Order: sequence, then structure tokens, then C-alpha cells
Amino acid sequence: MNHPDVREELHRLHLELPRNGLVTWTSGNISARVDGGLLIKPSGVTFEALTPEGMVHTDLDARVLNSDLSPSSDTATHAYIYRELPQVGGIVHTHSPYATAWAATGQDIPCVLTAMADEFGGPVPCGGFALIGGEQIGAEVVRVLRGHRSPAIILQSHGVFTIGRTPAAALKAAVMVEDVARTVALAFQLAAATGTPVLPIAPADIDQLYDRYTNVYGQRPAPATPNAEVRP
Amino acid sequence: MNHPDVREELHRLHLELPRNGLVTWTSGNISARVDGGLLIKPSGVTFEALTPEGMVHTDLDARVLNSDLSPSSDTATHAYIYRELPQVGGIVHTHSPYATAWAATGQDIPCVLTAMADEFGGPVPCGGFALIGGEQIGAEVVRVLRGHRSPAIILQSHGVFTIGRTPAAALKAAVMVEDVARTVALAFQLAAATGTPVLPIAPADIDQLYDRYTNVYGQRPAPATPNAEVRP
Amino acid sequence: MNHPDVREELHRLHLELPRNGLVTWTSGNISARVDGGLLIKPSGVTFEALTPEGMVHTDLDARVLNSDLSPSSDTATHAYIYRELPQVGGIVHTHSPYATAWAATGQDIPCVLTAMADEFGGPVPCGGFALIGGEQIGAEVVRVLRGHRSPAIILQSHGVFTIGRTPAAALKAAVMVEDVARTVALAFQLAAATGTPVLPIAPADIDQLYDRYTNVYGQRPAPATPNAEVRP
Amino acid sequence: MNHPDVREELHRLHLELPRNGLVTWTSGNISARVDGGLLIKPSGVTFEALTPEGMVHTDLDARVLNSDLSPSSDTATHAYIYRELPQVGGIVHTHSPYATAWAATGQDIPCVLTAMADEFGGPVPCGGFALIGGEQIGAEVVRVLRGHRSPAIILQSHGVFTIGRTPAAALKAAVMVEDVARTVALAFQLAAATGTPVLPIAPADIDQLYDRYTNVYGQRPAPATPNAEVRP
Repeated sequence: MNHPDVREELHRLHLELPRNGLVTWTSGNISARVDGGLLIKPSGVTFEALTPEGMVHTDLDARVLNSDLSPSSDTATHAYIYRELPQVGGIVHTHSPYATAWAATGQDIPCVLTAMADEFGGPVPCGGFALIGGEQIGAEVVRVLRGHRSPAIILQSHGVFTIGRTPAAALKAAVMVEDVARTVALAFQLAAATGTPVLPIAPADIDQLYDRYTNVYGQRPAPATPNAEVRP
Repeated sequence: MNHPDVREELHRLHLELPRNGLVTWTSGNISARVDGGLLIKPSGVTFEALTPEGMVHTDLDARVLNSDLSPSSDTATHAYIYRELPQVGGIVHTHSPYATAWAATGQDIPCVLTAMADEFGGPVPCGGFALIGGEQIGAEVVRVLRGHRSPAIILQSHGVFTIGRTPAAALKAAVMVEDVARTVALAFQLAAATGTPVLPIAPADIDQLYDRYTNVYGQRPAPATPNAEVRP
Repeated sequence: MNHPDVREELHRLHLELPRNGLVTWTSGNISARVDGGLLIKPSGVTFEALTPEGMVHTDLDARVLNSDLSPSSDTATHAYIYRELPQVGGIVHTHSPYATAWAATGQDIPCVLTAMADEFGGPVPCGGFALIGGEQIGAEVVRVLRGHRSPAIILQSHGVFTIGRTPAAALKAAVMVEDVARTVALAFQLAAATGTPVLPIAPADIDQLYDRYTNVYGQRPAPATPNAEVRP
Repeated sequence: MNHPDVREELHRLHLELPRNGLVTWTSGNISARVDGGLLIKPSGVTFEALTPEGMVHTDLDARVLNSDLSPSSDTATHAYIYRELPQVGGIVHTHSPYATAWAATGQDIPCVLTAMADEFGGPVPCGGFALIGGEQIGAEVVRVLRGHRSPAIILQSHGVFTIGRTPAAALKAAVMVEDVARTVALAFQLAAATGTPVLPIAPADIDQLYDRYTNVYGQRPAPATPNAEVRP
């Protein structure tokens, strides 16, 4: 079995998806870049039935290398992102409910929380509609995230993709995007019900919060923001 | 004890109902077709108190065969569906909250998520009002689902029925219908609160997503969609 | 220690309150009628720290009999209900979130689900505002529930009281009232967001559903509805 | 290792944050006053990876005393509050979703539940916008809470701070503020959807509820309200 440590890590991270309420049944997947390819969840397998050995190894054209299982039907998307964004080491895809509700309306999630300024440096962008299976989704993810601070994108009528230097960083972004999607949705519902608007945060304040979080927060001097290195 | 394997499986699947937030207290039930009849949850028993042995065996007229317990009060509905739809091997009934909220408004759940196109091939249809206990509900389920891609129906003012080739497939549909009922409800609330509409998916795109999912997704070449064989 | 079996049961039922999402921190309490008095949760104790021995024994004037702990500050309410409604053997009080949200608007929860017709035989009534500590709340509970099919009442700006022949029956009603409060609230939100009204159930259908559930549902011939014997 | 008992308690209380749904990933923190300083969560560490030993000891100017880990990036806020409010022995900070949604609209959470009158003695106040890292947030917390019954404040576009005589008391306030933020938000959504207003509680009734709860509730004669001693 190749890449045993990455497989163990990928298995462990997949179990965080149901634990954090991001997935239902077999939906959602995480991949890790490995030399010349990627490892990803097999298609249509429940999270309980997943094993480190079952993770499917493909090349960056999404061709399976030595596995009895079929890879996630989103593999072409993951492969496309790894080809185009060399600093990305991990990718997460979910249909987490609040983020997907935003995606169903085709809107960016506006940056109205200091926690969003910290993590995403601004709104979480919404990409256009793209069909599943080919490279359309990957192309849309790359087009939007290449010029963006945010390590997360929501895709119209579909769900969430997040990127990071590592699979763990991409998972953190996937957890946080659902968290802020929920809080901001609740804020807009409350605003509508009470007749009091959701308040904006000034762009200069967003910049200052993002810079502080990227450079000061956490235990390591290295940039803590998953998408830091893929900024143009 | 007859059909020990089916009873074990049915017991295991029933425990997924509370685990996935689909039921409260004793509500909800799953049945499996067995030769000449069905096995189903006993009436008014909590999920913790369920046992494989306690599943009640009835014929397809809902008459109890050899059990001390009374079967679910929905048994006549299950029996009716098995009589009319020979490819159905399993049925799930719940009052899961978001799907039931849609049912209280008498509306189909519109297909505005790619995950809905995948699983249901279009909207989840809402059947009319029918009283519990006799064959009215079964007749309404069969009338609506016989000509439909969806393996799930919501019933006005009542709840959800799902069908599948197996009880596990029907359970998957019950889990997914609540998942999409929630996300689509959140999307409409968000749309109302932000003044931005929920976006439709073009019918041709829905067809393409459904075909791909039915034929490509998962590990087996066989149709993965529970309702595939009951399409007319 | 008197009434060891009732204390064990009461302890076990209290643990169902947090498990079913009905309480936060130390709020909520259950009592059981015992000869000439009642047993109830001690005041301000967390659910984890509860023990069977810690349940406080009082008479029906809420005077403590032989305990080092102070009883729930709602004890006078429980005692009043037991004095006035002799068939009641158990009482539950919670601030469960959706039921309490209805109470904050002072509205009955309308009977728009077949599950509500089953369990409550109509709407869940909302009583008026009453201060905590004395007999005002108990008087309001008795005034409303004495002539009502429902074993549950919500109290304006406050929360839920449910009654039953046993503490377990009252607990079931407390679980079900939150379940229907949530689903009906979601239905009204969805109705407002989609411009499609919540549909009523005809009174004759409510009666038929209630009669069936009370007389046919479950495993025992005895009335399954907790409030059945306290109907006038 | 200094203050082993406080470290154990602080570790135990931190685990209550995810358990009560108040935090996501590494967000949220609790501190305890110790002689001449404070103990607080290290920055950017997950709740699973926390240990009693890992809690960081700082003085009341937020300078680290003898630790390899960096303290929470909110330490300056905690230190400021301890300097200004001598009766405060514990502080909790979260971005719990419903309370933060209120904060995103810049509104106080109105006191429309008897449970709020009990715990908070009135509305939960909302402070103005302040940037993270320096003393702005601490100054805003102190300015608002010094003259207030409430042990909790929400901060515009940000989240929640709660204070108490002990860390456990501050945690209770953090749990309760999210609970009431949720129920009151649900009430306003329901009011908007049904066209029935949320009902106020008369100020005299709020006072009476607060006095009763502060002086009668619970097992000890001492004031049970965390903020009782910091009232002016």
C-alpha cells in the first residue's frame, strides 16, 4: 500500500465530515496531493465503511492507479485544481446545508462577521453553475479562487469546495465556511424579522483583521491561512 | 424465528432513523418484503426497545402471521405498496421535520440542488391528504410514485414515504429527502430575507445529472437509484 | 430512602431531557406523584450531578419531607396540579426552544399535522402570563388543561408543562410537543418564504385521527394518550 | 506546574464549549483569574488537543509567564476585564451562532422570556464594534457590563463575552445566552411568519423574576447570579 501515512490522515479527516455535520450519507470527499497524483475517497462508500486502504490513488488526469475501487465522481474536479494551483495540497468538497443554501441563491456570503474577516479575508465567493463529472467545476473553482483571499468557494445550486496547503487546512476551511454560512443566514433572517439591518464591516477593518489573523494567530510563525500561498 | 437475516438488517436500519434525526420517540418505521408478506416494526415501541425478533411478520393484506406484537399502524400502507409495485423490496416512513414542514404547505420540494437532481431526478412530489390506517395512503403513494423518478413522496399534512429495491435503499432515500428538504427550506428563507431568488436548474441539466448519477456513481455497474426499477 | 423505584425511574427520565434537546444547563424538571406527595428534581442541580437519592420528597403543599436539598423552584406548580387533577401521576416542565418560541408570541400551536391530531387531539393551547414561584402557574395550567384533549400546555413568555398518568407519559408529551412545535414553526417560515399557506386539517379528520390513535395505536388495549383520564 | 487545580477545572470547562455547541474548531476560550494574573487557552489549539498543562499563564498586562505556547489572541481583552472588574474570577468568549447573529444586527437581545429575566435581569446588551487584539474590546465590555445586571454582552459583528465570579459561572452564562438568543430569534421568525407579535414582559415582572432567581433559586443561600457582585 503506497502512502500509508497520508491514507491514515485522509481517513481520520473524512470522519470529521459527519462529526461536524457537513455531510449526509455518502456525500462529500477529501483528497490529498501525493507525488504525481492524488488520493481520494472511493465513490458511494459510507463514512463508516471507509478505510485507509480504500482511498483511491489516481494521477492528475484522474486515471486510477492500482485500486479495485472507483474514485469519487468528483475526482476530475480535484485533479484539475491540483494541476492548476501547485501550492494546493488538499481539497474538501461538501454539500453542507447552510453554505449550499447560499449557493442555491447564487450569492456570495457577505463578510459581516469578524470571524469571516479572520478566516476568509472578505466574502466567500459564489461561482457559476457547472455540471458534475468533467472539468467544468474545476475550471470554475480555479477561475474564482486564483485571485481571492478565500480558501473556500460555494458553487451555484451545488455546494462547497475548499483548498489548503494540507488536507487538514482545507478541512478547517470547510468547517468554518459552514459555521459562518449558518451565522450569517441566521443574521439575515433575524434582520428581516426584526426590521433591523445586518451591519457591514468597513473594508479597512476587514483587512486589518485578516492581516492580524494570518500573521499573529496560532502557535507557528508560518502563515496559518490555508490559501495564503495560492494568492497571486 | 423466520427470516433471521432480514430481521437483523431491519433492526440495524431502524437504529439509523434516530441517528439521522428522522424520528422522535416511537414514530417512523421500516419494512422489508419477504416471500408472500412483509416484516415491519411493532407499533408504539421505542427504538431502544426494538429487537430483531420483535419485527412483526404479516401477509400482504397486513394480517399478522405468528407474532405476539401488533404491527405498525402504517402496515396497511406498506402492504398496499408492495402489492402494487412488485419491484419494491423496502419502504420507510418518517415524519422528519423539514420534509414534513414542506408537506404541511402541500408543495412539492422543487429541484434546485444538483444533489436533488442526482438522487430524485427532479422535485420530490407532494401527495394529497389521506387518513391513516386504511388503504388511502398507500393508494396515494402508488398513484404519485408509479410515474415518477423520485423514490420519495411527501404526503400533505403528514410526512414522508420512500421506496427502494431494498430497505437500505429506501432508508438512503429517507435520509436524503430530509437533507434536501432542509437545504431547500433554508435557501427559500435566505432568499426571502435577502431579496435574492432561489435559482432554478434547467430541465436538461437535471436530466443529465440524474443519468450520470444513476449510471456512473458508486462502485457497482447496477443502477444505484432505489426507484430505478419501478419507473414505468 | 423512600420510594426507591420511583426515584430510579425519575432519574432515568430526567436524563432523557438533555438527550432529547429539551433543556439547557439546570433548567427543566420532572415530578412523580407518590402517596400523599411528590418526588421532584432538586433546584439548580445539573443533569449529570442528579442522583435517584437526590430527588426531593414534598407533600402536596410543596413542603419538603426529609431532604437536605431544596426542591425545584417550580414545585408549587407541580403540587397544585396534583391537588387539582387526581388522575395525573407525572408532570414535566421544560423551556424547549421551539415550544417556548411559540409561547413568546402567545399563540396556540395550530393542529396542522396528522401527528398533532394523533397526540394532542387538536392545537396545543397557550396559557396566559403568570409569575413563577407561587400558585399562579399551576392555576393557569389546570384552568386550560382541565377541558382539553391536549396533555401539553405552553405558557406565555415562559415554556411548557405536560401531564400524564405516569412521568413517562408526561415525558413523551414533552418530547412530542417540541417536535411538533418545531415542524409547525418550520412550516410557517416556509409558507411565508414561498407564499404558499400552511394547510388546515378538517376538524372531523382531527377527531378521527385522535380516536384511532387513542384506541388502536401501540401494544396495549388501555388508552395510550397520557391525558385520556383527565378529560372531563 | 502552577495552579494545577485551576488548570484541571479550566480544561474541563473548555470541553463543555463544543459539547454545548458554542464553538467551532479552535474558536472560543475561557480564562480564570489566578493571583496576579490569569490562565487561558493557548491560541489556535483544537479542543481535543488541549491539556491542563497547556493553559497559558499571563500577568494582567497579558504578558506570558513561563509557557512555551502563545496565549489566545483574546488575552488582552480578558486581562483588561480582570483589571477593571475586581469581582470577576472567570471569563468566557465564544462566537456561538444565534448570539452572534444578534450581534451582526447590532441589537440587544430583548427580554421576552421568563428565563432571560431570571438569568440576565433584562435584555442582553450589544456593545459597539471594536477591533481584536488590543484593549478596545475589553474597554467596550467593561463600559457596558459595569452598570448592567447581565453577566453577558454581545459585541457588534463579533460574538459573546460573559463574566462570572468563577469560570464555571461565566460558562453557565455563555450557555444560557446562546439558549435565549436562539429561542428569541425563533420567536421573532415565528412572529414575522404568523403576523403575531412577540409579547413583552412588564419591567416590574422582570424585576420580580430576577430577584426571586437571584435569592431563592438553587441550593446555596449565596447569590447564584454570576454578575451579582459586579453590580455597581
